[in-house]
Amino acid sequence: MAFRLASIDDRAVLIQNDGIYDLEKHSNGRFTSDPMHAIAGFRELHEVAGELGSQPDAPLDGARLGICVPRPQKIFGIGLNYRAHAEESGMDIPSTPLVFTKFPSCLTGPADDVVIYGPSTDWEAELVVVMGTRARDIAAQDAWDHIAGLTCGQDVSERVLQFATRPPHFDLGKSYDTYGPIGPAVVSPDQLSDPSDLAITCDVNEERKQDARTSDLIFSIPELVAYISAVCTLEPGDLIFTGTPSGVGVKAGTFLEPGDTVTTTIEGIGTMVNRCIAKEG
Amino acid sequence: MAFRLASIDDRAVLIQNDGIYDLEKHSNGRFTSDPMHAIAGFRELHEVAGELGSQPDAPLDGARLGICVPRPQKIFGIGLNYRAHAEESGMDIPSTPLVFTKFPSCLTGPADDVVIYGPSTDWEAELVVVMGTRARDIAAQDAWDHIAGLTCGQDVSERVLQFATRPPHFDLGKSYDTYGPIGPAVVSPDQLSDPSDLAITCDVNEERKQDARTSDLIFSIPELVAYISAVCTLEPGDLIFTGTPSGVGVKAGTFLEPGDTVTTTIEGIGTMVNRCIAKEG
Repeated sequence: MAFRLASIDDRAVLIQNDGIYDLEKHSNGRFTSDPMHAIAGFRELHEVAGELGSQPDAPLDGARLGICVPRPQKIFGIGLNYRAHAEESGMDIPSTPLVFTKFPSCLTGPADDVVIYGPSTDWEAELVVVMGTRARDIAAQDAWDHIAGLTCGQDVSERVLQFATRPPHFDLGKSYDTYGPIGPAVVSPDQLSDPSDLAITCDVNEERKQDARTSDLIFSIPELVAYISAVCTLEPGDLIFTGTPSGVGVKAGTFLEPGDTVTTTIEGIGTMVNRCIAKEG
Repeated sequence: MAFRLASIDDRAVLIQNDGIYDLEKHSNGRFTSDPMHAIAGFRELHEVAGELGSQPDAPLDGARLGICVPRPQKIFGIGLNYRAHAEESGMDIPSTPLVFTKFPSCLTGPADDVVIYGPSTDWEAELVVVMGTRARDIAAQDAWDHIAGLTCGQDVSERVLQFATRPPHFDLGKSYDTYGPIGPAVVSPDQLSDPSDLAITCDVNEERKQDARTSDLIFSIPELVAYISAVCTLEPGDLIFTGTPSGVGVKAGTFLEPGDTVTTTIEGIGTMVNRCIAKEG
């Protein structure tokens, strides 16, 4: 059965029928409380999701969800993976995937605040792939067998720092603490009618900034998994931020400021609402 | 007392007087067998090193050392941080640090084989900083208080993949499995006469390819720690590959091939000997 895996107070929970089920409690010892353990056992997680019953531990409404993949070994970011975004950025359409990283210390939850560390901090709504197996040299046609699920991500980017060197290297400008909201949950692909074609939107305050479909990815999810796993052994919980569609702020010189609210929604996966706040001190 | 922390069969060991001491056994329960736990407790590790006695568990001679920092949350690489190397690469002298990553799955031990995945695989001997605390916004003058130790690294780099995109993004080309040998041990800075001025060399087979001093770094260790920690919260075990001196292979079009032996030595820290082997299949 399809699952939605989230975390509350660092404990793995399953979300079903608007209820929260503590995974350790409801799996009869098959899973610990660690969300990373749940991801590594994603095949068995389908079984547990099928046996949850109708007595949740708490209602979903009002629950404060944490980081659904708290300790990935690796986070891969893909640059310029929507044609219209490459064009608005004034950059070439890539002929091979442009792979960078977001350092894992940037991760934050789907309802957490984003601290604005620089004057050119931009939004980037993205579909995020959550790997489920330890594997390398994965063939594209087998890629979905190795994927635990999908989630939403914001690849928040400080543009000055992103382009501070020659050549520019994106990693640090995309890795300020809190610049990596993910969530609300890791959703198993079978929960989705077509996991390769999902509506993705980003609103800043009340204004729609990004509105696209993931079927427009230049390099598809299977192609990315094959490309990356030909280099690196992938681990359960590794994340791939698959790239952002057009509509980022830098083109118009509009950036995030304290007080702004960023709403990221992907069809069938859910919505994150992250408020921007000022850096202390 | 100064310490040398290594690992054997995934267990933390201290090296002293040509002997190996199992850390869990000799710390009376203060440390587990996990090298990451030892790094996070590096201040206490000095005490344990002072009480080891004269009965090692095994001689160092003949011991096969593993990865001394097996699970870093983050690996920062610094590009073009020696003037002569930036010049030989035909690139600008950076005015701010060029920060990239090596994905942690590339790490391997100081005596392990490097699998040659591409035709333009190059050597890069580097001094590697091992962070010891969880901290951000570290002032340069306080940086050494947050450093557990130093070790040797090889930032092995596949040049075609490193420069495959526009703009080039180094991360993936530096992250093939086995392209990150580190070791032989994490050496506490007080073990070294001047941790900011160490001789560093790289030999390929019998030929000396790199020969420099770490005092020639454009951005010093304290400057790098301050710069990076203004963006990311650092964690115990985070690694900073500080950059390579001149003498890499790409300038002369000479690359590593199966059968080659790469020997990396840093004064006061030790030597790694990594053999290059062919990819299977």
